[in-house]
Amino acid sequence: MMRIEELDTPAVVVLLDRLKRNIERVQRLIAGQGIANRPHIKTHKIPAIARMQLDAGAQGLTCQKLSEAEVFIDAGICDDYLLTYNIIGERKTDRLMQLAARVKRLAVVADNDIVLTGLSQAGVRHGSDVPVLVECDTGFGRNGVQSPEAALDLARLAVKLPRIRFEGLMVFPNTAPRTQDFFVRALALFRDAGIALPVVSGGGTPALNRLADFPMMTEHRAGTYVYNDVMMVHSGVASWEDCALQVRATVVSRPSPDRAVLDCGSKVLTSDQYYVEHYGRLAHYPGAHISALSEEHAIVDLTQSAARPKIGEVVDVIPNHCCSVSNMNDEIHGVRDGLVEITWPVAARGKVR
Amino acid sequence: MMRIEELDTPAVVVLLDRLKRNIERVQRLIAGQGIANRPHIKTHKIPAIARMQLDAGAQGLTCQKLSEAEVFIDAGICDDYLLTYNIIGERKTDRLMQLAARVKRLAVVADNDIVLTGLSQAGVRHGSDVPVLVECDTGFGRNGVQSPEAALDLARLAVKLPRIRFEGLMVFPNTAPRTQDFFVRALALFRDAGIALPVVSGGGTPALNRLADFPMMTEHRAGTYVYNDVMMVHSGVASWEDCALQVRATVVSRPSPDRAVLDCGSKVLTSDQYYVEHYGRLAHYPGAHISALSEEHAIVDLTQSAARPKIGEVVDVIPNHCCSVSNMNDEIHGVRDGLVEITWPVAARGKVR
Repeated sequence: MMRIEELDTPAVVVLLDRLKRNIERVQRLIAGQGIANRPHIKTHKIPAIARMQLDAGAQGLTCQKLSEAEVFIDAGICDDYLLTYNIIGERKTDRLMQLAARVKRLAVVADNDIVLTGLSQAGVRHGSDVPVLVECDTGFGRNGVQSPEAALDLARLAVKLPRIRFEGLMVFPNTAPRTQDFFVRALALFRDAGIALPVVSGGGTPALNRLADFPMMTEHRAGTYVYNDVMMVHSGVASWEDCALQVRATVVSRPSPDRAVLDCGSKVLTSDQYYVEHYGRLAHYPGAHISALSEEHAIVDLTQSAARPKIGEVVDVIPNHCCSVSNMNDEIHGVRDGLVEITWPVAARGKVR
Repeated sequence: MMRIEELDTPAVVVLLDRLKRNIERVQRLIAGQGIANRPHIKTHKIPAIARMQLDAGAQGLTCQKLSEAEVFIDAGICDDYLLTYNIIGERKTDRLMQLAARVKRLAVVADNDIVLTGLSQAGVRHGSDVPVLVECDTGFGRNGVQSPEAALDLARLAVKLPRIRFEGLMVFPNTAPRTQDFFVRALALFRDAGIALPVVSGGGTPALNRLADFPMMTEHRAGTYVYNDVMMVHSGVASWEDCALQVRATVVSRPSPDRAVLDCGSKVLTSDQYYVEHYGRLAHYPGAHISALSEEHAIVDLTQSAARPKIGEVVDVIPNHCCSVSNMNDEIHGVRDGLVEITWPVAARGKVR
């Protein structure tokens, strides 16, 4: 077995003990609420890791793009999927129906009548029902109907359209108090309208800390928890010791006392910042953070770090956003006790269609 | 031949007429200064496009990582390379020497004695000289010696070390007045020390506007000019009509009057912002810009746009940073007059080692 030191840098590694612990802890957390765990594969993009999540008790998987679902359905590990994306156009809805025919359930979302009508037409073309959730925007400002009333209107259309099997509502992410307010009102409206909501699907790793605040949810979709990252530590849902994904990088330059340069740039770490002020942390140099990125260079600010790495030294970077790091790399190495136990191809890397 | 409308989205296209015009204009600009054009392949990562640059008159190519150089040297299109990266460790310096043996010249940079000594040892191991430029930091804050005096010190070491062939100095990017000041002083120091500088290598697309301000340069390395992007338009070196790379994306949602959502997220566009305040522009909707990105969603702010795209419509996005978009996609489509003339694999995508 290869030792971790033998990996050429930059290399993305997953600490297998932490991975296992993260999977088990979140499974317990979600099952403890009596709801279904439906992890999002976007974080790892690796069927073998989804298999671990399913073995731990996950009920099904979440994918975002058809091409991701194709990879996972090809792997034959699960027969219950939710595709949290508006699928539009005959080419894509045909692919959706072909995929759906291969599993027990492939549900999909819609937030407007054009997408919903297209799904209905695809169902008619292929002679099978399409399970649909209505996506709700409870303040995140991405996709989703803007009010409980609009959710009901779209659900009424779903109920009327041929070959649509209306299943319920979906949101990302759960945030307090807006998601609660939205769903409390929506549930009352749907009850009055006599439309059942067998599925109410919430999502997001930060929301894992407050699942009890969303008693209307029947399932939860989280992705990032499997690896964790600087964002998750900042959001309070993970500690540094829960960060399973790290980038091993070599110090290639020390141009000045306060500056180190690593061989992992935005082509490995991505420029994702969201609410973090820097681009990643050095695991073993507290205070050191990546202050700037070029495509092949990470600039480390050592001002706040007493210890300082040397040229040629290999350091471990905890990235801001582990999901996007997965997408930058063709393979990821699973390590334990300093040994590379397994190298996984990131099978669903770059699947954007 | 496929029509552009038949491409599934998201799809990255290159407008071939603009590509050709960009290549020819910059070749004229650099040749007009009597210096060598050594384009950086990082923008396109495609040997066929490098071939166009060489056919137009480029003297050689610039790569950043060994794995990029491997792809281009395998393609057999050029025998004069500059690798603008500190290559460190025996595994990598051995690869460097193996590559160097396959071309007339493969020069490399160094900004510290550890890297330089490693290159010398590799030259001794493989029995051949290593052409080296000393990288200078004239204010960018990335790699590079911090002063002309430090450049001379490192050059003295280079001259002394076995198997190192000291060739000159390198900087990225050329900025006024700091790069001029640094190089004016450096040239005087080197002249006094009796050390020749056959190569003084500048770089950057924004610097193309002011090549005459850097008369000490013997060559220029630019990458982004081949496609251009929002950053280059903002920097004044290109117009919107010079932007050859565009992302075709479908409007999948219109959650509110001021918001459209596209199916190209950060997995296509990347989160690169640098000095731009948004994440990309819509070519045919002046005023519309991408205000936020998730991995699979681009949020378009339509507040400033009178015309507004419909759900299902395909729009053309001009990305902030075209180089990083190249790195996100396995293939790019060359289009002219609405037809897909060619589909290129992005051969050096993801080459980070």
